[in-house]
Amino acid sequence: MNSQYPIPVVINGAAGKMGREVVKAVSQATDLTLLGAIDRNPEHQGKDAGELAGLPEPLEVPITDQLEPMLAMAGQERQIGVMVDFTHPSTVYDNIRSAIAYGVRPVVGTTGLSSTQIQDLAEFADKASTGCLMIPNFSIGMVLLQQAAVQASQYFDHVEIIELHHNQKADAPSGTALQTAQMLAELGKTFNPPQVEETEKLPGARGSVAAEGIRIHSVRLPGLIAHQEVIFGSAGQIYTLRHDTSDRACYMPGVLLAIRKVVQLKSLVYGLEKIL
Amino acid sequence: MNSQYPIPVVINGAAGKMGREVVKAVSQATDLTLLGAIDRNPEHQGKDAGELAGLPEPLEVPITDQLEPMLAMAGQERQIGVMVDFTHPSTVYDNIRSAIAYGVRPVVGTTGLSSTQIQDLAEFADKASTGCLMIPNFSIGMVLLQQAAVQASQYFDHVEIIELHHNQKADAPSGTALQTAQMLAELGKTFNPPQVEETEKLPGARGSVAAEGIRIHSVRLPGLIAHQEVIFGSAGQIYTLRHDTSDRACYMPGVLLAIRKVVQLKSLVYGLEKIL
Amino acid sequence: MNSQYPIPVVINGAAGKMGREVVKAVSQATDLTLLGAIDRNPEHQGKDAGELAGLPEPLEVPITDQLEPMLAMAGQERQIGVMVDFTHPSTVYDNIRSAIAYGVRPVVGTTGLSSTQIQDLAEFADKASTGCLMIPNFSIGMVLLQQAAVQASQYFDHVEIIELHHNQKADAPSGTALQTAQMLAELGKTFNPPQVEETEKLPGARGSVAAEGIRIHSVRLPGLIAHQEVIFGSAGQIYTLRHDTSDRACYMPGVLLAIRKVVQLKSLVYGLEKIL
Amino acid sequence: MNSQYPIPVVINGAAGKMGREVVKAVSQATDLTLLGAIDRNPEHQGKDAGELAGLPEPLEVPITDQLEPMLAMAGQERQIGVMVDFTHPSTVYDNIRSAIAYGVRPVVGTTGLSSTQIQDLAEFADKASTGCLMIPNFSIGMVLLQQAAVQASQYFDHVEIIELHHNQKADAPSGTALQTAQMLAELGKTFNPPQVEETEKLPGARGSVAAEGIRIHSVRLPGLIAHQEVIFGSAGQIYTLRHDTSDRACYMPGVLLAIRKVVQLKSLVYGLEKIL
Repeated sequence: MNSQYPIPVVINGAAGKMGREVVKAVSQATDLTLLGAIDRNPEHQGKDAGELAGLPEPLEVPITDQLEPMLAMAGQERQIGVMVDFTHPSTVYDNIRSAIAYGVRPVVGTTGLSSTQIQDLAEFADKASTGCLMIPNFSIGMVLLQQAAVQASQYFDHVEIIELHHNQKADAPSGTALQTAQMLAELGKTFNPPQVEETEKLPGARGSVAAEGIRIHSVRLPGLIAHQEVIFGSAGQIYTLRHDTSDRACYMPGVLLAIRKVVQLKSLVYGLEKIL
Repeated sequence: MNSQYPIPVVINGAAGKMGREVVKAVSQATDLTLLGAIDRNPEHQGKDAGELAGLPEPLEVPITDQLEPMLAMAGQERQIGVMVDFTHPSTVYDNIRSAIAYGVRPVVGTTGLSSTQIQDLAEFADKASTGCLMIPNFSIGMVLLQQAAVQASQYFDHVEIIELHHNQKADAPSGTALQTAQMLAELGKTFNPPQVEETEKLPGARGSVAAEGIRIHSVRLPGLIAHQEVIFGSAGQIYTLRHDTSDRACYMPGVLLAIRKVVQLKSLVYGLEKIL
Repeated sequence: MNSQYPIPVVINGAAGKMGREVVKAVSQATDLTLLGAIDRNPEHQGKDAGELAGLPEPLEVPITDQLEPMLAMAGQERQIGVMVDFTHPSTVYDNIRSAIAYGVRPVVGTTGLSSTQIQDLAEFADKASTGCLMIPNFSIGMVLLQQAAVQASQYFDHVEIIELHHNQKADAPSGTALQTAQMLAELGKTFNPPQVEETEKLPGARGSVAAEGIRIHSVRLPGLIAHQEVIFGSAGQIYTLRHDTSDRACYMPGVLLAIRKVVQLKSLVYGLEKIL
Repeated sequence: MNSQYPIPVVINGAAGKMGREVVKAVSQATDLTLLGAIDRNPEHQGKDAGELAGLPEPLEVPITDQLEPMLAMAGQERQIGVMVDFTHPSTVYDNIRSAIAYGVRPVVGTTGLSSTQIQDLAEFADKASTGCLMIPNFSIGMVLLQQAAVQASQYFDHVEIIELHHNQKADAPSGTALQTAQMLAELGKTFNPPQVEETEKLPGARGSVAAEGIRIHSVRLPGLIAHQEVIFGSAGQIYTLRHDTSDRACYMPGVLLAIRKVVQLKSLVYGLEKIL
């Protein structure tokens, strides 16, 4: 295998919202080549993947629902092939097994696999000595925020999280805010030892309590998109980390990084933070 | 009465935290003159009010616990006198009556009077045709924020409030945040009609619900001082008003404004917003 | 004329970015009816205005390049008609005159008219006793911010502006930030009297100086959209007004408000702030 | 040497603003003991260091101007002694040499030493196998911000810095903001490749250009204290790091950490980031 050839990429779920972004990003990267665009949606069969993604020129890559022939093709290139998967919890397990069987490296953004399934896939990848990246959140900015928060949590004993989203979001707190709290809690200390006996004059004023005393406040308003703020405090100082997402484009640097990394791996790796 | 003479000011509670700030502010204003400094604290009797307030030079105004002689003096000046009161709920009612009886105009920052007492004092001031200002919050910035929020609430249907304070503060939400919500609620519309059915995965995540659907989130951290943020949202835009307090000095422009206004009034007026 | 009938609306520039948003907004308002969609772009002639705007169902209003017949139709409805114009500096003057001649009220978002032209159109509207709204910025949130800033500038002597935009924006400061500074400057006082002799170790560090000592700082980064922050300071307090735009949808409440107001006017009015 | 005994601490410059904070912090730490309080200011000789620092009870440690006897005492304790130095550029070099000569470990917050002097002291500490910490900025929060910014700069190509200070600050940009820019620049890449040809309608609008294309904007307002914001942007996302200082107390965790670390060192170490 040789890095002088572009990495052939097959995009599974190419007609979805994330898939279209990946089509654009891959087609614009000079070290990658878009080999195939797969999607089960009957409405889009045969359409040009580039035109569907909103590119000004067609890419001459038609949408097809035939995954296996594409994987077979990708497995025969001079450079290791990659399958990017943004499909559905019900199909992703099979997709990954097929890719590995054809010697193609999966980069998986689809969530919803059980831990048993992930364990199983890890063993399968291991036996095949084939890299596989499972990445629930491709936002490099968010991973950087979480890493910086973990670093800060060693020196600050007080922290609260505010996450702000559009008012179409039904659940609170957001999964990412809960994940941040979980990461800080792994340090093993209890945060926010109270200085006074707190009284809530209105229930909920002080937010929700996630792991180890870390409070999360969830704001929902039209006009917001997706924002997270982690606020550390100690006597005389406040240290704030904030991430604002305004467009799916923000996930593409993470997707491209994953494609370039997975061809060097020999086993299943979980989480963008592992390859930063 | 004549504005060519400085306004004589008596400060009641001159050795307290707010009183000391008022001593500094009044002594530095060229159109005001500090006539007397009253405080009941036996520890500070006879001390120079200026030195106690941290001024580099003494003001030659000793702290005394004798209010009435000071009011008598202030009532005999060529310019109408003013008593600034930052004392205690238990004494403020009598202080105000005494001041009005001597023809001295009260500017009252002490809170805790019942509405019956306030009503009673209003009648007393009315009969005497004497101005009296009762001002629970002297922060001009906060009043401007609240007025701007009321203005915005006519055009936005979605709003949430975040208030952030040091972790010595026991109650949540803050009184000022509740007051802001109350002011918006007076418009008579219900805010934040839900777009989806919301689920709290952790109780309290979505904060407290104050009047008319307005949510308040209370953050408590060391390093914070006193902050309030009112966030309006509609499709494609967010409009945020934020006030940060870092020092009691921020109340002094409001105190000085009140002193200059009360000499022109003939009755009791409640709230800084009435004189802005 | 009778408010029980919906207001007939003709959109000029209906195939442009703003025009398409207006098509969506008007078609969803129950008190308005979309009568015509005009656009000069040959590429879009005959297409359904609703489908072009991304609505799921066609509106049965085809794009046409014939303005006058549409104005004629709009002028004969039972309710006064309105023409919304988002076209081009070179055509807007004639569009407005035509609309007024047909008894149709213009709501004009197109900028670039000279003050002589505006004066001329004002006289024309006056003679015809016909309302006309010229509105360079339809963002209600931004107008509220500017009004709140003018209010605050009476009580604060120190203020700086930070505006933040995507790095495709070529000019700095933004026109809206300059407009805010101009509005504050009209108060007639000089802001930001220096407390110390300032030294710039690197030129430009302290930003640009707009009217009356007000400084504007312009940040340009990918990931930003359009944001303005006005920061007032005095001893011990900071009061911040911030507006964030993330989508053209934010202008639609202003456009709808203007349509509903212009039918009640008898002359040319300039600026959204006049009808809030 | 044995960690069961508290570390004896001598504070040089104990009557200064930082010195008084250190007196408070050291006296409240159970693993440290305040052995001596040195200050040259004749006004404070003989005063109790605790009372001068505003503690409710005296510490029975009088201010003295005799450094050497204190160092001699500190050098003879069962646990290694530490000298904290917040004095003056003109005396700090000699203070450090004296401390090392007595086997006392210096923790130095005084700035202004030349690089030759620092080099010289490093050699002196090396020969004596004595730890010495020189720390220009004791703010753990700021060091965490700078480390997180360096980490982020590997993945973001666009970054701007806003620093905000009270309007008593004469120079712009702040030294700490310049230091942050310098740390990012060390990565060796040029930031902020322009997307369009930028035009400043008012000079200075786009701020100052520090190392490698990184722009710094300096805001000065009364009511601000000391704040730094580093804003990274890429398509669809913004990642912001912000540090707010409101009180000298914020430096004390860094000072205490340095005291506990320096007793384990055998040479001169520069910068708080080295011991985090």
